[in-house]
Amino acid sequence: MAKTPKILILNGPNLNTLGTRQPEVYGHTTLTEIEAMCQARALERGLAANCRQSNSEGEMVTWIQGARGTCAGILINPGAYSHTSVAILDALLTVELPVVEVHLSNIHQRETFRRHSYVSSAAQGVICGFGATGYLMAIDGLADLIGNAKGSGKKA
Amino acid sequence: MAKTPKILILNGPNLNTLGTRQPEVYGHTTLTEIEAMCQARALERGLAANCRQSNSEGEMVTWIQGARGTCAGILINPGAYSHTSVAILDALLTVELPVVEVHLSNIHQRETFRRHSYVSSAAQGVICGFGATGYLMAIDGLADLIGNAKGSGKKA
Amino acid sequence: MAKTPKILILNGPNLNTLGTRQPEVYGHTTLTEIEAMCQARALERGLAANCRQSNSEGEMVTWIQGARGTCAGILINPGAYSHTSVAILDALLTVELPVVEVHLSNIHQRETFRRHSYVSSAAQGVICGFGATGYLMAIDGLADLIGNAKGSGKKA
Amino acid sequence: MAKTPKILILNGPNLNTLGTRQPEVYGHTTLTEIEAMCQARALERGLAANCRQSNSEGEMVTWIQGARGTCAGILINPGAYSHTSVAILDALLTVELPVVEVHLSNIHQRETFRRHSYVSSAAQGVICGFGATGYLMAIDGLADLIGNAKGSGKKA
Amino acid sequence: MAKTPKILILNGPNLNTLGTRQPEVYGHTTLTEIEAMCQARALERGLAANCRQSNSEGEMVTWIQGARGTCAGILINPGAYSHTSVAILDALLTVELPVVEVHLSNIHQRETFRRHSYVSSAAQGVICGFGATGYLMAIDGLADLIGNAKGSGKKA
Amino acid sequence: MAKTPKILILNGPNLNTLGTRQPEVYGHTTLTEIEAMCQARALERGLAANCRQSNSEGEMVTWIQGARGTCAGILINPGAYSHTSVAILDALLTVELPVVEVHLSNIHQRETFRRHSYVSSAAQGVICGFGATGYLMAIDGLADLIGNAKGSGKKA
Amino acid sequence: MAKTPKILILNGPNLNTLGTRQPEVYGHTTLTEIEAMCQARALERGLAANCRQSNSEGEMVTWIQGARGTCAGILINPGAYSHTSVAILDALLTVELPVVEVHLSNIHQRETFRRHSYVSSAAQGVICGFGATGYLMAIDGLADLIGNAKGSGKKA
Amino acid sequence: MAKTPKILILNGPNLNTLGTRQPEVYGHTTLTEIEAMCQARALERGLAANCRQSNSEGEMVTWIQGARGTCAGILINPGAYSHTSVAILDALLTVELPVVEVHLSNIHQRETFRRHSYVSSAAQGVICGFGATGYLMAIDGLADLIGNAKGSGKKA
Amino acid sequence: MAKTPKILILNGPNLNTLGTRQPEVYGHTTLTEIEAMCQARALERGLAANCRQSNSEGEMVTWIQGARGTCAGILINPGAYSHTSVAILDALLTVELPVVEVHLSNIHQRETFRRHSYVSSAAQGVICGFGATGYLMAIDGLADLIGNAKGSGKKA
Amino acid sequence: MAKTPKILILNGPNLNTLGTRQPEVYGHTTLTEIEAMCQARALERGLAANCRQSNSEGEMVTWIQGARGTCAGILINPGAYSHTSVAILDALLTVELPVVEVHLSNIHQRETFRRHSYVSSAAQGVICGFGATGYLMAIDGLADLIGNAKGSGKKA
Amino acid sequence: MAKTPKILILNGPNLNTLGTRQPEVYGHTTLTEIEAMCQARALERGLAANCRQSNSEGEMVTWIQGARGTCAGILINPGAYSHTSVAILDALLTVELPVVEVHLSNIHQRETFRRHSYVSSAAQGVICGFGATGYLMAIDGLADLIGNAKGSGKKA
Amino acid sequence: MAKTPKILILNGPNLNTLGTRQPEVYGHTTLTEIEAMCQARALERGLAANCRQSNSEGEMVTWIQGARGTCAGILINPGAYSHTSVAILDALLTVELPVVEVHLSNIHQRETFRRHSYVSSAAQGVICGFGATGYLMAIDGLADLIGNAKGSGKKA
Repeated sequence: MAKTPKILILNGPNLNTLGTRQPEVYGHTTLTEIEAMCQARALERGLAANCRQSNSEGEMVTWIQGARGTCAGILINPGAYSHTSVAILDALLTVELPVVEVHLSNIHQRETFRRHSYVSSAAQGVICGFGATGYLMAIDGLADLIGNAKGSGKKA
Repeated sequence: MAKTPKILILNGPNLNTLGTRQPEVYGHTTLTEIEAMCQARALERGLAANCRQSNSEGEMVTWIQGARGTCAGILINPGAYSHTSVAILDALLTVELPVVEVHLSNIHQRETFRRHSYVSSAAQGVICGFGATGYLMAIDGLADLIGNAKGSGKKA
Repeated sequence: MAKTPKILILNGPNLNTLGTRQPEVYGHTTLTEIEAMCQARALERGLAANCRQSNSEGEMVTWIQGARGTCAGILINPGAYSHTSVAILDALLTVELPVVEVHLSNIHQRETFRRHSYVSSAAQGVICGFGATGYLMAIDGLADLIGNAKGSGKKA
Repeated sequence: MAKTPKILILNGPNLNTLGTRQPEVYGHTTLTEIEAMCQARALERGLAANCRQSNSEGEMVTWIQGARGTCAGILINPGAYSHTSVAILDALLTVELPVVEVHLSNIHQRETFRRHSYVSSAAQGVICGFGATGYLMAIDGLADLIGNAKGSGKKA
Repeated sequence: MAKTPKILILNGPNLNTLGTRQPEVYGHTTLTEIEAMCQARALERGLAANCRQSNSEGEMVTWIQGARGTCAGILINPGAYSHTSVAILDALLTVELPVVEVHLSNIHQRETFRRHSYVSSAAQGVICGFGATGYLMAIDGLADLIGNAKGSGKKA
Repeated sequence: MAKTPKILILNGPNLNTLGTRQPEVYGHTTLTEIEAMCQARALERGLAANCRQSNSEGEMVTWIQGARGTCAGILINPGAYSHTSVAILDALLTVELPVVEVHLSNIHQRETFRRHSYVSSAAQGVICGFGATGYLMAIDGLADLIGNAKGSGKKA
Repeated sequence: MAKTPKILILNGPNLNTLGTRQPEVYGHTTLTEIEAMCQARALERGLAANCRQSNSEGEMVTWIQGARGTCAGILINPGAYSHTSVAILDALLTVELPVVEVHLSNIHQRETFRRHSYVSSAAQGVICGFGATGYLMAIDGLADLIGNAKGSGKKA
Repeated sequence: MAKTPKILILNGPNLNTLGTRQPEVYGHTTLTEIEAMCQARALERGLAANCRQSNSEGEMVTWIQGARGTCAGILINPGAYSHTSVAILDALLTVELPVVEVHLSNIHQRETFRRHSYVSSAAQGVICGFGATGYLMAIDGLADLIGNAKGSGKKA
Repeated sequence: MAKTPKILILNGPNLNTLGTRQPEVYGHTTLTEIEAMCQARALERGLAANCRQSNSEGEMVTWIQGARGTCAGILINPGAYSHTSVAILDALLTVELPVVEVHLSNIHQRETFRRHSYVSSAAQGVICGFGATGYLMAIDGLADLIGNAKGSGKKA
Repeated sequence: MAKTPKILILNGPNLNTLGTRQPEVYGHTTLTEIEAMCQARALERGLAANCRQSNSEGEMVTWIQGARGTCAGILINPGAYSHTSVAILDALLTVELPVVEVHLSNIHQRETFRRHSYVSSAAQGVICGFGATGYLMAIDGLADLIGNAKGSGKKA
Repeated sequence: MAKTPKILILNGPNLNTLGTRQPEVYGHTTLTEIEAMCQARALERGLAANCRQSNSEGEMVTWIQGARGTCAGILINPGAYSHTSVAILDALLTVELPVVEVHLSNIHQRETFRRHSYVSSAAQGVICGFGATGYLMAIDGLADLIGNAKGSGKKA
Repeated sequence: MAKTPKILILNGPNLNTLGTRQPEVYGHTTLTEIEAMCQARALERGLAANCRQSNSEGEMVTWIQGARGTCAGILINPGAYSHTSVAILDALLTVELPVVEVHLSNIHQRETFRRHSYVSSAAQGVICGFGATGYLMAIDGLADLIGNAKGSGKKA
């Protein structure tokens, strides 16, 4: 535990095209830029960010499972799988880590099917509508959750 | 505009009992403590926080209307009125200011009727599940939205 | 009955901001202008208009109760409370007066939750989509309803 | 345009039996009487009323199409086709004229299937519950809409 | 009243193709044969059957209106318009005559949209699933309803 | 087969109170009178009527099972169990006999929960709204169904 | 605790018009009479009744909050707010007192929207349909609940 | 009428196991104890309680029918049949006696299917959530209803 | 069969106004131009196109019935009747011919009520969103279906 | 406990007709044969099977209650009552024994109303679609559940 | 066919974490232990078990396709994909082999979205709630289905 | 642009088994044969077809992303993912190319869950029910869309 705790930052389908895809909805920042911002902010908070992106539901499940025992928390933007994946929900329930869910846009102002996220049932906190800034807010929130867990852990 | 821009921080019904009410759901911090935290963080971001709480839907509508022309943004935790008030939604649509919505708990893990918020249709960003910390994140997000609005204004 | 009969003209939440709020939906006329138009038209029809506006559901209930025995009819634009207030519906059922409901916009072309009005269950007639003109039409309609009620009363 | 502008007044199925059919719901005035009242009021407003009634959905569609280029506006009481006819809705969308919809009874107080009108999606204004008087109110409203359109047209 | 009372026997869309159309559902008897059977049975019951068929909803409305004052009752198989026509329902409510509804097939065993008939709201009795025989049963039932109405009329 | 074929006439819960129970809905004829009328009509059609009534769903199931091999058809008024009993539906599907369902009132004009009958899925024909007369019509219909079955059987 | 424990008796919107409002539904007894009856019955049960009525949802929330630490239980007839107020539900969940809900009419026999009460989720017991008598029954029930709570408290 | 009027106290399925079945939901009092309490309270109110319990829907229907002409009112806890039995509803509508419905638990806080009771449509008053005490409250309420009925009967 | 087989090309309500009506949705080509294109393409495929348009549901039913025995297939754009006409569905089921359904716009991207077509239940193939080109694709598809039917017929 | 533990094997309505009823759905084995198979298999597992069948919901409730204290587990095929009986669900919740539910057919491939079973809420395990074999699998599963319960009991 | 027939035992997403994941729901046995148990039981039944697990929906589809012609049956626990995958349903429909579906927990007692399984539409039998034991029961059931298929195959 | 423009022809899960899988629904042509037909037809239209098939949702997303900048249009048969994949919908919205959706069968005549396609929201045109021929029609439609886009591009 003397080592810097790791967090998994996991982006789902089509987020690899950020910056080019419907910029009027999702903004002009690319995923590479967001990941760099996240790594910097994580370091400020004493965390090492492990950034991954996948278009595959199964691969996301496997990576979440792998966070167990190796990471101290998960930041996830599940993209389209928010609305359709029970498998990712189950994986997050398995790992028993603090989870923060981020969406670039305010999903409550879009089509009906985008307003429900299975993942929210497994997340401590949810942030949406702040664009790339939302990732930084999420790292702050996750750092607090990890700190609190450690704190309460020490006392126990 | 040389003066510090003001933001309205508006808490809805029953939030005046925070710290005593169902602490296993909402935590032990009181509303007074949260408002103090908010004022400190707002100052750090160059904003002056005007904190109000009401149990009355109509009073909340009136205060939101009053923010027009006097405030640069609104942070709102509408409490129970999130789920039932079209009047507050309409007031927020009127003022044409950046709006951030905060909930202490993750409303997506509670009763079905708590999972829909009319207010989300009028908010740029939504944060839930981070307890009192969520207010600080919301001030950060709101400060960015206000800054961007000013920034884009300057360029235009 | 030798005196001019009074009517209550009651506007609900956010209608005090008329003329500035989403003018592409609600037009540029202010509530003060509408009330003046209404008072003029009421006089032409032999009626005295008592104009009130409130953002508070409870205050609206109280004013409607007060119309009993003092007014000959009610013209109401319940605003957002159209869609959520059973209390206003109950108050209108209580007073046993002719009631006309007005909406500035055609609510049947807006969001689903704006297409149902509890108040319609207690109104003789409903007018929507004619902007400020709709109030004048409503006064005409209400004057007829009051006249008919008096007429039929005399005959009985 | 020096000629008196025409308006189409179109009544749908079963309205030819007005005055005899369920008078406790629809009143004792016959359609012939209503059409005469409408023609008088239209003249007062500088309009010539072309009154038609049909039990046939297809014939109503054809007459609405025919109003294009020959009429300045349409007053329609679609009767039972309000609730079932997408074809009449489409015809009204085609003609690009001001449309006012009238119902004799307050449809919001009747069976559920009578509370939705496809036609409302194509109407500027809707009036219900005023009986025969509602037609006169509708002519007033339509005259205003036509006047405004002409006014704005002159300026353009 | 010394003359034989008339009844209107009205068949709706596609019933003119009976005997050729999906005989596994509707049987092999043609509409002409059914009408002949009906006229014979009506005579036995002291009634004169006026048999009509139309594919047009509007024409059916008009014929039903025409039964008022000329017929003593209506036997109707509304075919597909059972499920979609509020106009025919309204026409039947207008005429204030005994109405019996017949369906050749048991509509409760077919597609969901065939299980609801608007017409049933205006009929005293409903018969389905007996094929052509159902018409004869319906004439018997209608004769009883007419007889009772006359009987009670005489006593009153 | 030289013997008179039997039919089971089965009445469900509360039909034993006919004539006293809500006569404005169900008429003044008692069940004993209806059963006598049925036995007479059945004899005219060459059938022997076995009349039974029960308030018990299970007893009705058992009697229907007993009709297999002993009766040529079933006339059933399932009363309230129409709307709630899958067990009676299954029993009727088992016996593989012609089934006719009768309701005294027009169930399509009553509460929503009375408009659906599970039993209709197992009946060849359904008759409702004719009061006690409906039973006689049902015997006629059932006699035809039994006759046709025998007829087609002879040919095969 | 030597002092007489207080109970809050809270009546919601439009209950101030009792006795004049739709007496065929709600009876002829006025609220003042009911409150007097309640105070008498409370005294018999060793309780002091604090009677309040409001048309304002926010005021009701505030009064319920005020019962914490000052009252031993709450009797509430939320009137129309039963069906629409999550804020009152939340306030009742906060105070952690025995709550009994009363309705004058049997709400299960009225419009669909009157059959669901948010408040029932926070009440130990619910009584409806007994008119003014229901309040006395509720005081009895509340007295028992308070007594039991005290009893169990003593043992703990 | 000089004799003590009888009331039927009818308990439905599984209530015979009270005291042993899920005591955390239904309490520890047995049905025998409740029936004794009821008989005592009934006597105090000048009524003789006839207590019955059945697991059979049909038997309950028969007993309710039997109350006609022999009892002055019915207190019923229909247990699970509350949610599924139209037959019991119909029986209660038949007897034309005052009916009070009792539930031990607050059914509005349990599974969705337990929140609707068919029986409530036939009851004057409904009481739930007070455990065994609810029966005593129900006898009080029923006694008042019987008294009022007698009173109004005398005047008529 | 040595003669050129005919196909019925049937356009429903409002399609006679094509080219002028909402061209941003339906394009600028007129129905006359589309019919000419269809006739040319049909000839290339060895078919003679019989083109008709009607605003009347009943007339469309009659024309479809008339295709039986005279045409080898039907191309239908039912317009607004797609969404409301069971009568046209039944007529198409009757004729037992290959049927292809065409829509100019992609109905799956429009209002909810335009996304369901009764006619699709009676069509072999459905094409939407290709504008006028869709008719030519439909003729190709229909020609193949007719050819296959003939082919399989020859082999049998 | 030295005695062989008993299990209740309970079959619901219409299962007494197995082998003759819709054999294409339920197979040709009779209930007597299934019960014999069950008794043999139970003996192999050290259990004594008490086999019962009833068409009566109330009788099934009573038998389930009787299993308390006399049986070690229940195997139930509730037949049609699966879909409609809350009373049987409640009885099973009462007995606090291991419960296994069996269906001969795969209910998930049948009508919608057969896909939901109230009983599943009270069963540890559910088996469907294996025909008579499913009973033997259920005895195996029940034997394990009873063994585990005993085992865990011994250890505790 | 002299060789031992193979069966595919396919486990879906997150089942690789069995024994560590929510053991209070899914038990402590690992997937490796379950697969070993399955292979032993399969051998006893004369079958060779080919055990696979995947987190990927697409990989599961491919493996199911591969079972065609190489396996005699499929035992599948689709995990979270039960509730969301039409692709796996289609693959199972393709292979035309006996399919048995297993769930460790009783899915009918969990969240609503876990109560529906697309896979059940393609399975002969379904077993849930027996934990690891359910796999052994499923192998028994599958062995019987394979044996029967072979038996009937031989006769054909 | 002098080079032949490419189109992506993408087939989803289980379409690799075409010709063997449920041929009564999908026909006997294999995917290889369809791809060959497509390549030939594409060449005739001056396009080069790049044919791919995948059972993996994620792989389909990746391939669609890859079409951006390399292809001029996409023909997609999403198979089962039509009904469940928001990720594929999002990918198609990203690439900003003409998209045509094809289904072999008429999905509007199959199970309810097959009647909705997320992909249709991102497609210009949709073709279903023509079997393999539908692909050729789709290439024709896509070629026209690409041609028009080029044409309008040249003019701009």
